[in-house]
Amino acid sequence: MIFNLKQYLKDKQSLINTSLKQTWLTHDQIQPDVLFEAMNYSLSAPGKRIRPVLIFACAEVLDMPVNDVMPMAAALEMIHVFSLIHDDLPAMDDDDLRRGQPTNHKVYGEAVAILAGDALLSHAFSVLTKLDQSKYKSENIITVINTFAQATGMPGMITGQVLDIKSENKKISLEELKNLHAHKTGALIRLACTTPAILKGADENTVKQFEDYGKAIGLAFQIVDDILDIVGGEDLGKPIGSDQEKNKSTYPSLLGLDGAKKEAQNALNQALDALSGFGEEAEPLRALARYIVERSH
Amino acid sequence: MIFNLKQYLKDKQSLINTSLKQTWLTHDQIQPDVLFEAMNYSLSAPGKRIRPVLIFACAEVLDMPVNDVMPMAAALEMIHVFSLIHDDLPAMDDDDLRRGQPTNHKVYGEAVAILAGDALLSHAFSVLTKLDQSKYKSENIITVINTFAQATGMPGMITGQVLDIKSENKKISLEELKNLHAHKTGALIRLACTTPAILKGADENTVKQFEDYGKAIGLAFQIVDDILDIVGGEDLGKPIGSDQEKNKSTYPSLLGLDGAKKEAQNALNQALDALSGFGEEAEPLRALARYIVERSH
Repeated sequence: MIFNLKQYLKDKQSLINTSLKQTWLTHDQIQPDVLFEAMNYSLSAPGKRIRPVLIFACAEVLDMPVNDVMPMAAALEMIHVFSLIHDDLPAMDDDDLRRGQPTNHKVYGEAVAILAGDALLSHAFSVLTKLDQSKYKSENIITVINTFAQATGMPGMITGQVLDIKSENKKISLEELKNLHAHKTGALIRLACTTPAILKGADENTVKQFEDYGKAIGLAFQIVDDILDIVGGEDLGKPIGSDQEKNKSTYPSLLGLDGAKKEAQNALNQALDALSGFGEEAEPLRALARYIVERSH
Repeated sequence: MIFNLKQYLKDKQSLINTSLKQTWLTHDQIQPDVLFEAMNYSLSAPGKRIRPVLIFACAEVLDMPVNDVMPMAAALEMIHVFSLIHDDLPAMDDDDLRRGQPTNHKVYGEAVAILAGDALLSHAFSVLTKLDQSKYKSENIITVINTFAQATGMPGMITGQVLDIKSENKKISLEELKNLHAHKTGALIRLACTTPAILKGADENTVKQFEDYGKAIGLAFQIVDDILDIVGGEDLGKPIGSDQEKNKSTYPSLLGLDGAKKEAQNALNQALDALSGFGEEAEPLRALARYIVERSH
């Protein structure tokens, strides 16, 4: 049986989009319209939903129903979108376009954009508390919440964003670049891969396999992002060449274009290796890893 | 026995300050120095620590050891400080001084200030997962986490901040002003008062008593803040008259100075009424309510 990734992505994206809209971000008449609208504007913008899809695919390997991990998928997308809103601000990357649309602050102004990001981050933690305590140990849910907080905050993504800011207009080493991205984009991708196993209370070795997979595809994802910033791609949703314009060190700038492509291929092989202990149930994860490396946007 | 509030405040402030410094925000060499420094700069600035002190005082009523609620006290102060950092940004209130020191973005720049706020918010949720699961039910801890997320986010403080922005240069009614502050400052104060009871699994009626107390002192706190913005006070740590300068509706602007003072007194009476079911163990809470109304800074 040939696994149809295109259909799989479409189904899973539809699942998370419907769930976000109908369950996890609803307008309850208490909050001011503009706050809800600003949160919803960025959360409902057309995104690839890679992180939620990774959660679903990892849950599948562990034979967990998709609804069991839905609060984690919704929370993770909220945290990702919060980081995009803040990253796009004039004081940060100062971007006008995101996912093909005007950035949040371009539409709602800086003040509301900052607060919409803050509110999405808070809300994500509220959503996580809806994980099913009748089905999973409350201790595991608390560990999941801590894993989210760590991956987002000082030990994770936000450190990556600070490293990113501090290395603009500066030549950094390959090691420093990898460390930067292991935090900035890697932390949330690893989180997507490990938290289903943590919720289920899987043994350490199993969690480690998912973590190794997540590490490898996180690296691949960033290398390919850097490559696409140079060679372009269909429907990228942001201007080509923006890294170069900002004098950012990238994989192609440090390794050359061919070197970067080879590094992405190595990361793909590592991701597939990490899954060698699993059977057909991990086919979606294998296809996702290949997709991340071979995508054109 | 006359209760010595001054000493009580000093002891509790010292407790939370030591705990924040030694346990809850430490430099682990992973994160970039500047992120840790920016977080620590605002978190260790001299504050009244009213919210942590409220948590301690409510815990005392319930006969809970102070260390049991310390993670909540630390997390709450982090969330409060995160909100101050973002509130002071040029895109928001554009303040240069906070707690008598230059605001975070004045020292570290806007980008790092935004990220330091984000990191404090994330970190708060990590800290909450350290509540003692061997002593308190994990379900209660999860409810506490949700209460924090709600009080901070869309249903709570952030909605208050959006309402605040949207009502600048605009005359709003007393009802609207009360709603604004019930969110902006009230949500975290109510949280401080209710979460010890929630952690302990107290009955609904008990939680309600703490909530009523919290509501009343939250209102009193804001009225007095507005009054102090006009009449000034020792060591206010921010410029006098800043509300008026921004054309904000305040309790004195809607009720007159005497009317506002009377309203604060009413709120104090409501706070004391809410505690009528408790005995001497609630003396710190009674003294705190009086202090909030009678303070000069």
